Parts: sequence; C-alpha cells; structure tokens
Amino acid sequence: MAAGSPMRALLLRNDGYASEPSGSVLEAMEPYVEAGEIAVPAPKPSQVLIKVRRASINPSDVMFVKGMYGQPRMQGQPAGFEGVGEVVEAGSEPQARELKGKRVAFAVGLTGWGSWAEYAVAEAAACIPLIDGVRDEDGAAMIVNPITALAMFGIVREEGEKAFVLTAAASQLCKLMMGVAKEEGYRPIAIVRRDDQADILKQAGAAVVLNAEAPDFQRTLKETMKAEQPRIFLDAVTGKLASAIFHAMGKRSRWIVYGRLAQEPTQIPEPGQLIFQHKKIEGFWLTDWMRSVGREKRAEAVAEAQKRFADGRWSTDVTAVIPLDEAMARVPAELAKPNGKVFISP
Amino acid sequence: MAAGSPMRALLLRNDGYASEPSGSVLEAMEPYVEAGEIAVPAPKPSQVLIKVRRASINPSDVMFVKGMYGQPRMQGQPAGFEGVGEVVEAGSEPQARELKGKRVAFAVGLTGWGSWAEYAVAEAAACIPLIDGVRDEDGAAMIVNPITALAMFGIVREEGEKAFVLTAAASQLCKLMMGVAKEEGYRPIAIVRRDDQADILKQAGAAVVLNAEAPDFQRTLKETMKAEQPRIFLDAVTGKLASAIFHAMGKRSRWIVYGRLAQEPTQIPEPGQLIFQHKKIEGFWLTDWMRSVGREKRAEAVAEAQKRFADGRWSTDVTAVIPLDEAMARVPAELAKPNGKVFISP
Repeated sequence: MAAGSPMRALLLRNDGYASEPSGSVLEAMEPYVEAGEIAVPAPKPSQVLIKVRRASINPSDVMFVKGMYGQPRMQGQPAGFEGVGEVVEAGSEPQARELKGKRVAFAVGLTGWGSWAEYAVAEAAACIPLIDGVRDEDGAAMIVNPITALAMFGIVREEGEKAFVLTAAASQLCKLMMGVAKEEGYRPIAIVRRDDQADILKQAGAAVVLNAEAPDFQRTLKETMKAEQPRIFLDAVTGKLASAIFHAMGKRSRWIVYGRLAQEPTQIPEPGQLIFQHKKIEGFWLTDWMRSVGREKRAEAVAEAQKRFADGRWSTDVTAVIPLDEAMARVPAELAKPNGKVFISP
Repeated sequence: MAAGSPMRALLLRNDGYASEPSGSVLEAMEPYVEAGEIAVPAPKPSQVLIKVRRASINPSDVMFVKGMYGQPRMQGQPAGFEGVGEVVEAGSEPQARELKGKRVAFAVGLTGWGSWAEYAVAEAAACIPLIDGVRDEDGAAMIVNPITALAMFGIVREEGEKAFVLTAAASQLCKLMMGVAKEEGYRPIAIVRRDDQADILKQAGAAVVLNAEAPDFQRTLKETMKAEQPRIFLDAVTGKLASAIFHAMGKRSRWIVYGRLAQEPTQIPEPGQLIFQHKKIEGFWLTDWMRSVGREKRAEAVAEAQKRFADGRWSTDVTAVIPLDEAMARVPAELAKPNGKVFISP
C-alpha cells in the first residue's frame, strides 16, 4: 500500500478539548468520530507504517474522543491509541527498518495517526515484536493496560505493604494487576459498584471485594482499612467515592489517580490528614512513566507482559471483535457490556 | 518551686476534638480555656521544668484549643505550644541536667504541659539554650514559626525554581521565610486578602503580592504563574482560594498544605492535572519533619534561627505582651490585630 492511497478510518470530528465534561460512557459514536477516508500516511525516519489487524478500545480512547483526556484532539485524524498489526513500511532509521514485515503490538503516541484505521503510524520505539504464542487480541491490548498494570504494581511493591486498594476494579487493567499481585502474595482490595462481580474479581486475585453501593459500605470500608492497612490507593474514578476511600485509609497513604471516570467534583476529604498523617495525592500517567524510567525497566515490563500473555497467565477477555465498517453502529452497545474488551478489525 | 505546689495556668476546657469546625479566629477564650490553678509538674528523666517568661500564641495554638488541630486536647491541662523561660528543675538524664539554670526557647511537644502557665515541661531535646543577644519575645517564638519557615524553605531550595507561592503571606511565619528567600535570590509570590499589606510584604521579601479579593485576581494570578513558573505552593489556608492557585500553577507543581485556616471544603481543582501534569498534593508538619530529618539538619536549623534573631536579620513583631491574669479578657482583641504576635507573660 503506497503512501497517499485512500484508506478507511474512524476520524475525529472535533479539535482540542470538550467545553463541558460529559461522563465516561460512550453513548454514541456520531458526536465524536465518523467513518471516512484519508490518505495512507508515510512514516518518518523513526517510525513505521502498520497494517492494522486489531485495534483496542480502551477507557482512555473513550475519554480522548470525547475531549476529556489530557491530550488535545486533531479533527480529521484517525482515533485509537493502540493495536496490533504487520509493519508494511519502515522509516530509514535502523530501529524502524528491523521491524519491517513483523507482527507488532503498537501504541501510536503523539504521531497523530490512530489505530482505528486500516493503517496506523507508530514510533518504532513504541512497537513490540510479538512471539507466536500471543493472540492478536492480546497483542492489540498489550501496551496501555498491561504496562500500566505492571508499572503501577511496581509502586505497590516499592511501598512494601501487602494490601492496596483499587477502584473500577473490574476493568481489564485491574484484573491484570490483581493476577500479578496475587502470585506475589499481595492483597488487592477491589472496590466495585455491583455484587455480581465479586466472584470474577476473587478469581482474578482480589483478597477483598467491597461493593460501594451496599448499605453497609462505609462500615466495611473502615473495617477493611483497619484490618488490611493499605498504603497505596490506585484510583481510576475520583469523585465522592474516591474521597471516602482515601479518608478511611491510614497514615502515610498515597492516593494515586490514573483515571477520572466520575465527572463530579473531587474533594480533599480532610486537609488535616495531609498535614498530620502525611498522606499524599498524586497521579500516574503511562506516557510519563515511559519517559521517566530507564530503557531497561521499560524493556523489562514489555518482556514480562508478553511472557504472561504467551504462557496463558494473562489473557484478554474479549466481548466483541467488530469490523471497521460496523463500528459506528455497534461499538457503544458492545462497550456497555461488562467484563471484557471490544476490538475493531479493519 | 517544688513539684506539687499550685501554679496559675490557662487550662483546656475540653477533651479531644471539636465536633464541628468553627473557623480560625479566636472569638473568645471562655469556650476553650479557663484561668485556674494546677499542681506544678515534675519532669521525667529526659525532661526539664521551665519557669515561663513569655509564652507564644500561634495560629496552631488557636486551632488546638478549639479542637481543630491534629492532636487531641486533654481537659484540665495547660494550653500553649511554645515559650521561653528558665530551666529550674531537670530530669536525671545528662541532656536534661546540662540545661539547669539556662534560659531556653522550648516547645512542649506531647508532654501535656503547655506554656500558658507559670511553669511548663518540655523534653530536653526540644529546648534551645539562648545566647544573650536574643530577646525574650524572639526566644518565645523561636521554634514553631522559625523552624517551620526554614524547613519549608528547604523544600523550595531543593526543588530549584526561584519562585514559590505563599498563602496567608502576612503571617509571622511567612515574613520570616520571605526574608531568607529574598537574601538567597528567591522570588516569593505572596497571596493576601487586603491591599494595605502589600508594602509590608514587599519589605519582608515578597517579589510579587497578589490580593485575592481584587476583581482582577484570576487574571493576575494566571499571568503571574506563567511569568514566574513557581513549582512549590506553601499553603496555610486550603479551601477555594488554594484550589484556584494550584489550578493556575504549571506542570510538576506541589501543593504543600501546612495549615487550614479556611474551614470550607477543599476541592482538587482538576484531577486530570495530577495525571497529565504530574502535580502533587501533600502536607507539612513540623513535628514530623523534626522526627524524620537527621539530628544534624535539625541542629543546623536551630542554630540558623538563633543567629538570625541575634544579629537582627529576623525580629518578631510584637503586638502585645499580656500578663497571665489579664489573658482571658484581652487575648482575643489583641490577636485580631494584624501583623504582629501576642505573648502571655506569667
């Protein structure tokens, strides 16, 4: 496929950021993306052109197309942060050229060429050549969730306390993390909003599952924090629930925000706890982690993720694989189903 | 004075914490302390008994007697965190014995025996023998504010950016800190609520003074943050104003809460900034700093503070020195005056 030929893609309809927050649910595709055609791009020297086999739809993609992710949208460019595919063209740099013809997991980073398209562009450094045992569905979801899971679990490991807290615990990301945690004897405290997820989460590695909608939640939360003494709180939600959890945690706790699915305001529950209990509130962003940790630590995480998918310890739960042409019509309904991932197949 | 004899003191009327927050102003003494008598305590082996010459009234004392400081009150015990006086009895340990007869600045810590009394008890380790050039008023206010000022300015120094932000900037603590900062070429951005403090603050060392009540505050705040690029925000206030300041600050900013004069709820202005801009929210408490830094760093700060008072670079602005017997009647009105400290003289 020569650069310049037309390709099909889901193109962003808006520029920049949303003026009003609108919730984390993708209620429809039409306000945010449209099916269209755009010329196949040419990779720069450090980049590769990938024929996409599967593209992921992550919570961060939904936030991005809605204009609520911390990076601006570019109208008319393809959406989609990650995927799997075959490298069909490569830039002139050696790191790019050696990927030619390989099947790779990739993240598009800031190239502007998303994975919800027939072809995507990624930096060679953001591609992982896949071994044969890794399914396309695992490869397409190998970077955003798995590396985030490993990087954030690294924070738990460094902190030392065995127990730690997770909101939105039924997400793929949390399930991956809980699997690793359980293997190493850690005790994930999974906070969810439905009782029917408890069994799935315990199988995935949760030591304790709390339903935030249960009438006795405040009491069980307090008791659990007292008994388990977690110090790290990995939060994808923010808002009232997250505040209440942080408030119930003990001295020297760290509230690490990596998503903000709740759009409601978020209070510091009691600023005195920051002073007298040495509690902290901070954030985690994979892109930042990738930049700030050394190349070695990054490569370690990538190798670890691939090994786990290849040997079956990790596996991506698939809700649906949707052809690109059907994506506009089917994606919102499939995304609304719990407990699995939705992929686009161009 | 033998242990067990009666002494005059201002005694706490309540136990534990306030059930409702009630603002940072001491509207009256009667709800919180009463003039009374209590037996002179005997120091433990590591402690000394001090005949108090001057006792400070700090914002943290007000918060404490009102039950809004992070340590519980003990009904019937004397209030007051720090002061200056003469060591009249000493415990058996060498560190205590060598203080006997000396004039010391002291902080009572968790001994339970406050400085708003004829006699107080302090750990020998929390006493600073004073050189002659230091006035009683400076000695009585030598620990809580000056050491906090030096310790927090140490955070600014380590961070590296020359500009930093202060709320409640007209406090004694901030004025001390701005003096050191200016000497070393740093640029304090002082946030206050009245225009008439601007000149005093500029003399004290502020590079920029912003009045949060001015109609164009949001604009000047934004412009100042852009021009000065501060990373450290030392906040004694919390609430809406602090949120707005943190929101206007740039990447990698740290909001360090050391007081919460505003009792209104405090929001995290935009949790996405924690994720994508690597901003952090944390706290500072002198007691914690004292415990966690080495003995050497502590001694350095103490020596530095004393030198600055002795050579006149620092000087405590005195609003009033009130005899213990008049304290119940006069303290609230004197405390309400701006720009100086109020002392009790037993």
